[in-house]
Amino acid sequence: MLSFECDYNNGAHPAVLQALLRTNETKQPGYGQDEYTLHAKEKIAAACQCSNGDIYLLGGGTQTNQVVIDTLLAPYEGVLAADTGHVAVHEAGAIEFTGHKVLTLPQTLGKICADDVAVYMEKFLADPSHEHMVHPGLVYLSHPTEWGTLYTNDELTAIRSVCDTYGLKLYVDGARLIYGLQSPDTDVTLRDLANLTDAFYIGGTKAGTLCGEAVVFPKGNAPKGFFTSVKQHGALFAKGRLLGVQFDALFTDGLYETIGKHAMKMATELKTILTQKGYEFAWDSPTNQQFVVIDKQTKDRLAERVRFEEWEARPDGRFVVRFATTWATTQEELDELSKIL
Amino acid sequence: MLSFECDYNNGAHPAVLQALLRTNETKQPGYGQDEYTLHAKEKIAAACQCSNGDIYLLGGGTQTNQVVIDTLLAPYEGVLAADTGHVAVHEAGAIEFTGHKVLTLPQTLGKICADDVAVYMEKFLADPSHEHMVHPGLVYLSHPTEWGTLYTNDELTAIRSVCDTYGLKLYVDGARLIYGLQSPDTDVTLRDLANLTDAFYIGGTKAGTLCGEAVVFPKGNAPKGFFTSVKQHGALFAKGRLLGVQFDALFTDGLYETIGKHAMKMATELKTILTQKGYEFAWDSPTNQQFVVIDKQTKDRLAERVRFEEWEARPDGRFVVRFATTWATTQEELDELSKIL
Amino acid sequence: MLSFECDYNNGAHPAVLQALLRTNETKQPGYGQDEYTLHAKEKIAAACQCSNGDIYLLGGGTQTNQVVIDTLLAPYEGVLAADTGHVAVHEAGAIEFTGHKVLTLPQTLGKICADDVAVYMEKFLADPSHEHMVHPGLVYLSHPTEWGTLYTNDELTAIRSVCDTYGLKLYVDGARLIYGLQSPDTDVTLRDLANLTDAFYIGGTKAGTLCGEAVVFPKGNAPKGFFTSVKQHGALFAKGRLLGVQFDALFTDGLYETIGKHAMKMATELKTILTQKGYEFAWDSPTNQQFVVIDKQTKDRLAERVRFEEWEARPDGRFVVRFATTWATTQEELDELSKIL
Amino acid sequence: MLSFECDYNNGAHPAVLQALLRTNETKQPGYGQDEYTLHAKEKIAAACQCSNGDIYLLGGGTQTNQVVIDTLLAPYEGVLAADTGHVAVHEAGAIEFTGHKVLTLPQTLGKICADDVAVYMEKFLADPSHEHMVHPGLVYLSHPTEWGTLYTNDELTAIRSVCDTYGLKLYVDGARLIYGLQSPDTDVTLRDLANLTDAFYIGGTKAGTLCGEAVVFPKGNAPKGFFTSVKQHGALFAKGRLLGVQFDALFTDGLYETIGKHAMKMATELKTILTQKGYEFAWDSPTNQQFVVIDKQTKDRLAERVRFEEWEARPDGRFVVRFATTWATTQEELDELSKIL
Repeated sequence: MLSFECDYNNGAHPAVLQALLRTNETKQPGYGQDEYTLHAKEKIAAACQCSNGDIYLLGGGTQTNQVVIDTLLAPYEGVLAADTGHVAVHEAGAIEFTGHKVLTLPQTLGKICADDVAVYMEKFLADPSHEHMVHPGLVYLSHPTEWGTLYTNDELTAIRSVCDTYGLKLYVDGARLIYGLQSPDTDVTLRDLANLTDAFYIGGTKAGTLCGEAVVFPKGNAPKGFFTSVKQHGALFAKGRLLGVQFDALFTDGLYETIGKHAMKMATELKTILTQKGYEFAWDSPTNQQFVVIDKQTKDRLAERVRFEEWEARPDGRFVVRFATTWATTQEELDELSKIL
Repeated sequence: MLSFECDYNNGAHPAVLQALLRTNETKQPGYGQDEYTLHAKEKIAAACQCSNGDIYLLGGGTQTNQVVIDTLLAPYEGVLAADTGHVAVHEAGAIEFTGHKVLTLPQTLGKICADDVAVYMEKFLADPSHEHMVHPGLVYLSHPTEWGTLYTNDELTAIRSVCDTYGLKLYVDGARLIYGLQSPDTDVTLRDLANLTDAFYIGGTKAGTLCGEAVVFPKGNAPKGFFTSVKQHGALFAKGRLLGVQFDALFTDGLYETIGKHAMKMATELKTILTQKGYEFAWDSPTNQQFVVIDKQTKDRLAERVRFEEWEARPDGRFVVRFATTWATTQEELDELSKIL
Repeated sequence: MLSFECDYNNGAHPAVLQALLRTNETKQPGYGQDEYTLHAKEKIAAACQCSNGDIYLLGGGTQTNQVVIDTLLAPYEGVLAADTGHVAVHEAGAIEFTGHKVLTLPQTLGKICADDVAVYMEKFLADPSHEHMVHPGLVYLSHPTEWGTLYTNDELTAIRSVCDTYGLKLYVDGARLIYGLQSPDTDVTLRDLANLTDAFYIGGTKAGTLCGEAVVFPKGNAPKGFFTSVKQHGALFAKGRLLGVQFDALFTDGLYETIGKHAMKMATELKTILTQKGYEFAWDSPTNQQFVVIDKQTKDRLAERVRFEEWEARPDGRFVVRFATTWATTQEELDELSKIL
Repeated sequence: MLSFECDYNNGAHPAVLQALLRTNETKQPGYGQDEYTLHAKEKIAAACQCSNGDIYLLGGGTQTNQVVIDTLLAPYEGVLAADTGHVAVHEAGAIEFTGHKVLTLPQTLGKICADDVAVYMEKFLADPSHEHMVHPGLVYLSHPTEWGTLYTNDELTAIRSVCDTYGLKLYVDGARLIYGLQSPDTDVTLRDLANLTDAFYIGGTKAGTLCGEAVVFPKGNAPKGFFTSVKQHGALFAKGRLLGVQFDALFTDGLYETIGKHAMKMATELKTILTQKGYEFAWDSPTNQQFVVIDKQTKDRLAERVRFEEWEARPDGRFVVRFATTWATTQEELDELSKIL
């Protein structure tokens, strides 16, 4: 059975696993004080060109969103996010668990825009009861979004500008950042994210590690007491080396770039195949997730030989389904998929 | 300056205040064990015809919503509410503060409907990721709604039925219940609420007391440890007599009904005046809050002599404003208002 | 049955109740914007000689402790308190409910001391794992304590000094402050508390009001967003006038001082009676709560004619019991008690 | 530099790492639905002889304690633990973060006893204010304790019995369980824990994995909605295979037993060496952590060539220090240590 249903169905990239093997025998201090974590942090800071950045390695995406949003917000503040945003829908209320409301914004293909943030803030401030309401404190966006779409530098700059106007922080969920950075259709770099945000994270789990996300506070602006907060949230690993070794490997010899490029090459190929086979795209995605509209018969036929994700049932009886490439996707898998489609 | 801006701009009903005076010299145990609280509970149970009901007196509306919703829900559950519901907008995130997400439903003039609850639940259950999402555990509605509108018994019965189908609890915010019960256009009684809900509260603050809301768990179904939970939420009064005396007075000699009827008579009169003066109603409200659409010039003119609440700025430059009658509104005030309008 | 079991078994002081009567007919804005609250704040600031102080009126003691401690602490910080402190024992976990740990200190008759705070902090800082521990952020003390004892100005100054050394805030729970201020054995004034603390509250519930506590942030240092935080905690009254009128009355024409003096005169008289009757004091209390040790037979005998609180069962079979005077205690009640004792 | 400071300074056991390598190429569903997790669960259930047990794999110890305690307790309940317990001291308030108070019990060398639980409960129930206090809901203990000590089956049975008497749950933190089970001085087995507790966890991080702890609800009594709660706490891994593969390896071919036995053989050898060299044991530990008392000079001398943990500074100027063996400790390391000591 072929497996195109998501980008976390693999183990680790071989180079990452080899790094775990190679370093396994050394004795290391715990809780992120190991040498690999220190190296990883340096390399990530270099990649982001933020030499003063505070960098922390956490375990997973929801955990990272929970810890970072909770510590960046004042207790009476909430987070602005697309109503389709991961924090708004698919994190089982992990943000509310920490006492913060997710304030939703309209979106287009998963993207919010600066104007809608401004409109929200103007409406909030104009409401004579706004002191009885949750104060927006931070804008959350995912890049790529859950829909595979990307922000441009201009769009992010506009959002940053609105954030500055209204005293909001800006945080980018980069669970799939690797696929955004290597998309042929992007002008956004790690350096741009470091310049424009108060915090963002570089996803590892969907980018070749077994677990782990690297949070960057690019201006050395990690919230006070952050280490303790991480522990308080239950998010501190005793063997921080597990995260350190993996991110060290990812940011050595350009591995992160290389495997991102490969994944996007596979995505482009997948797009070509889908186009040639006459599939209707649900929308255009410039990243590793491709969404097509199929009828039930096709869905049933394909499901016998390939795993994909059912994204949405349409009122017309058809389905939006997702095929995802990853750093691990091979040409052989695409060839086989091509025969099935 | 006339004052029609809300229904909590008064002190207490004289009979309530006299009860405080009359009982002031007695010594009473604290924390709700005083004799007045006991009497109040009996009278409320009688009024609701739920002799086995558990009744608790709390301080204010947001506090009551917070405590009741938090204790009725499992920690991983959320509350379904109209996107305009008080818990969703104007409680500063008091629900999220206790870890629960407010899951929003569409509304019409502040009302949700059984079908939309069912649609939400079907969509939730059909979502293959629903275990990664907040589980709906309770339906919250306000009666009257924030828009002054009312549910019918049929509508509430339908919502109850959907709740039963999907294992949801039903909770009614009765901050303004007094005005709903005495509306000429309602068929909903206290007994109906006791029959149909898992919990509801009878608002005191907007109904003639200085503070206090009476929560009814009509089937003796107060959550386990509820007294301790109230304390844990910071919501327990040392001098519970303050609440007990007031509710005892409210439910003695039909005061609650009498003053509700008066308020609604004033509301009907207000409606007549507004109609006669040619005002455009924003929508029809069968309760004590009346909403009209006026232009800026009218708004400015009126604002010189009467306080009212600006509800919404319309895109056409006009405004929806609210005039509220209360148990304290006098014919003289209406006459004076009539001259101004 | 005589009633000496606590200091919240009365209604309101007549002057407070009269103020509620006198102001009842006025229309007032809600949520603490009423004129009485404004007057009360001015008068309290004057009494504390902190003209720049931020003053807020809340509903009850546990609520006040919860809101103030939660908003003064960073989310990863805890509060240092006597292991017998109200926040540590008898608030049903209201502090933990907001995510903060209560870190306990040893006490003597309910009092902590500067040295023990310093010892705690030195030990904390010396612990190589202290970043894995809750950071102490604030010292909580009650004055008078739960044991009726009082701090001296020197003791408070020493605690303040230790707080400054270690970057801790200082907060005083003044549920019974009135009895401390009027004790013949104190040198601590409202002005001293304003000088020495980051926040303290002046209890109303035990000092002649039906409810309400006045929080003072003496340097204008109310936490950012405090109004919204109050609402978020469910602690905001719609009819803030209820609190405003009562505190306005309490701080008009020296009522707060007068009734405190009376209560303490009654306490001194009670002490004299107990001494004359040969009762053994459990410890010396300079305030309105008097603690004596009695055997079971005496306890049973007294309990037939007077209510008192059983404080503790001693291993020797005897009991510590508490008799409390209040602003409402009369000479007649003491005379009658004297006959019973 | 030799490294005896803790039991999480290694990578993974080679067999665990090989399992990660061997399974790396397969495609697996996420979130714990992978085949390895399923196998691991079966094998763990078999090892515990609780075929109906619910087993979940989580990331780390503090996280596991946080999630399990929060979901086993009612929101108004607290957890009873030794005042030296990990949850009471070194988890940065992770329990309080979820709203629960840690209620402390006296301990002897890290162990609590059934009598002290009973005494606590009797005192709690006898307190007339106990409804104003946090209700104890669960007993937490660690086995081995933080002091390396062990409970006997009789002791655990007595605690279970007291729990039954008072309606308390029993939860065992097994971060170092492997060293307890293979201690020559224990009569407690996995089966005993399954029989006696409501939940316990089998630590992986300190037992040969890179991360991961296996929670066992031995009677199929996982709290309702547990999967969603795990996600809500930010504790769900996308690549659950990381945990599944490691625990599958640990419970295959007796690896868990084998490496535990080896670690304990090394511990016994370490004890012998320390005894022969004339070191004074701080107390007797039957597990992998050995505690000795040394003076400053010795400490400084040793610290030049071996890492150990400073546990406590004694008033007499000496220090309690900890040496820990692990599954990874070699005879060569012990020989070298012997030369240094």
